[in-house]
Amino acid sequence: MSKIRAAIVGYGNIGKGVEAALSQNPDFELKAVFTRREPDTLTLKTPGARVLREQDAHLYKDEIDVIALCGGSNDDLPTQGPKMAALFNMVDSFDTHAAIPGYLAKMDAAARQAGRTAIISTGWDPGLFSMLRLLSGAVLPVGEDYTFWGKGVSQGHSSAVRSLPGVKDAVQYTIPVEAALQAVRAGEQPNLTTREKHIRVCYVVPEEGADTARIEQDIKTMKNYFDAYDTTVHFITQEQMRQDHAAMPHGGFVFRSGVTGGGHRQIVEFSLKLASNPEFTAGVMVAFMRAAYRLNKEGQTGGRTVFDIPLYYLSAAERDSLIKELL
Amino acid sequence: MSKIRAAIVGYGNIGKGVEAALSQNPDFELKAVFTRREPDTLTLKTPGARVLREQDAHLYKDEIDVIALCGGSNDDLPTQGPKMAALFNMVDSFDTHAAIPGYLAKMDAAARQAGRTAIISTGWDPGLFSMLRLLSGAVLPVGEDYTFWGKGVSQGHSSAVRSLPGVKDAVQYTIPVEAALQAVRAGEQPNLTTREKHIRVCYVVPEEGADTARIEQDIKTMKNYFDAYDTTVHFITQEQMRQDHAAMPHGGFVFRSGVTGGGHRQIVEFSLKLASNPEFTAGVMVAFMRAAYRLNKEGQTGGRTVFDIPLYYLSAAERDSLIKELL
Repeated sequence: MSKIRAAIVGYGNIGKGVEAALSQNPDFELKAVFTRREPDTLTLKTPGARVLREQDAHLYKDEIDVIALCGGSNDDLPTQGPKMAALFNMVDSFDTHAAIPGYLAKMDAAARQAGRTAIISTGWDPGLFSMLRLLSGAVLPVGEDYTFWGKGVSQGHSSAVRSLPGVKDAVQYTIPVEAALQAVRAGEQPNLTTREKHIRVCYVVPEEGADTARIEQDIKTMKNYFDAYDTTVHFITQEQMRQDHAAMPHGGFVFRSGVTGGGHRQIVEFSLKLASNPEFTAGVMVAFMRAAYRLNKEGQTGGRTVFDIPLYYLSAAERDSLIKELL
Repeated sequence: MSKIRAAIVGYGNIGKGVEAALSQNPDFELKAVFTRREPDTLTLKTPGARVLREQDAHLYKDEIDVIALCGGSNDDLPTQGPKMAALFNMVDSFDTHAAIPGYLAKMDAAARQAGRTAIISTGWDPGLFSMLRLLSGAVLPVGEDYTFWGKGVSQGHSSAVRSLPGVKDAVQYTIPVEAALQAVRAGEQPNLTTREKHIRVCYVVPEEGADTARIEQDIKTMKNYFDAYDTTVHFITQEQMRQDHAAMPHGGFVFRSGVTGGGHRQIVEFSLKLASNPEFTAGVMVAFMRAAYRLNKEGQTGGRTVFDIPLYYLSAAERDSLIKELL
């Protein structure tokens, strides 16, 4: 059987993760990475795959079955997404929750007009966590949802700390409060404030001679980012940063705590413990790349979300064998 | 908007659970319960719903939009399923894993010919657990699946104990071995024997003057049921049985422990803690009743599994609002 011809747009952490994930999925073949950088400056791990200029992507639209669009949700995807959806079947991991409906409308229009299929906001939140919220809420309509994130690095919060004067480098971990997790798991349906759900821990490399007391104060009082949380700040050396904080672990928990009609308490819990956030996100994207390709072959064009896809489209195995082995 | 007109076939624990679940889903209206018993002997909790003879079900096929078929997988569903699928859109919780492909083929033929839609093996295993096995395996193709059941009552094992001479009543709990759960959760990918995964605990009410040592021996050596497990047997009074073991709790765990292409360990965990197994199973069935009804309205007829249904069909909310609120 011929392989699904894949391409990656953007060769950052997620793009590299998609390359690694494709190597574990033998029904795919990575044909190309599209980049805005000078192609010569990139060295891929996949033998035979080419590095091409993103601006030339349209030249390859008949040679690629599906792409993973690995740009950022703020700067790249809002313009890049609809452009690419008009050329290729595609998935992305657009993760600005509030902007999803507007983005989906644009992606749907672009993909539909071109006869392409675009699945947006794959990944794990949005993505797998969203699927679990929908599924568990449909099964337990009387109940409460709880989502916790971490322990893991928040890129947004890390950037915010790095932007402060006197900060040379910084990383921020979001950590669920264990007592809150336990209360939810015990079915107590607590009303949790922001402060009661997560703590934030920062590791900061200060500039030479910087006022660390002021930096700590600046972090803890930063509006929207830290002021509603209990935050701990540790000052470390650049060497410690390199040694102890280079990995990108993450994870989290989705709970549905409900009561069924006879008054019985029922708890659904879904959790992820990820040693590499970008590699796992990429794994989800590749499963949905397969779905986008298959849907398109069936003539199902336009914009889709993770809510719209029958699960068997995600697996490399045949439906009959999934029913036999996993149902 | 007019409500979905539902019926229940079989008024045991699951059937009563479906009635309770329908009362929490205002887009449904329970019209009837079909039973093989004398209709007069049943008292429903739902005002306005009728108790009707199962043999008269065909008379009502135009008055019911979808049914929940609540019979047993061994004795009832193999014959009752295809008969009902030729009359109504329906769901069941057929749970004889090995027989699913054959059953699906029969249900598909019956439903397709009648222009009906039948979703089989809803519930939680098969059902939600199956969905999580498929989803997490598609995302982490290099890895291992682990499913644990309990703590919960196994009906099959309880019956097996009750069938022994000298046993007046009995209940059997399946319990996951905590050390095995922890090893899987820690990403160790252990190779677990049957004995290392679950223990079995029996509560037995002996007949007056029965030889309890022999009963205990008979249980622990029972082929296929107990001989491969560490089993504990407690003898109790009928009064204790009534007081402490009337509830039907259950639950379990599905893990996918994988390694992504860059060598990072990733763990997906899904778990259920259910105070009432039949009420939760019924909650899943009602969500899939909604899907069966909707699929049929769109002309999608025949047999389906939980792998075949886009998630948004399960929820009472509109797709747009799900995308806005949950994605």
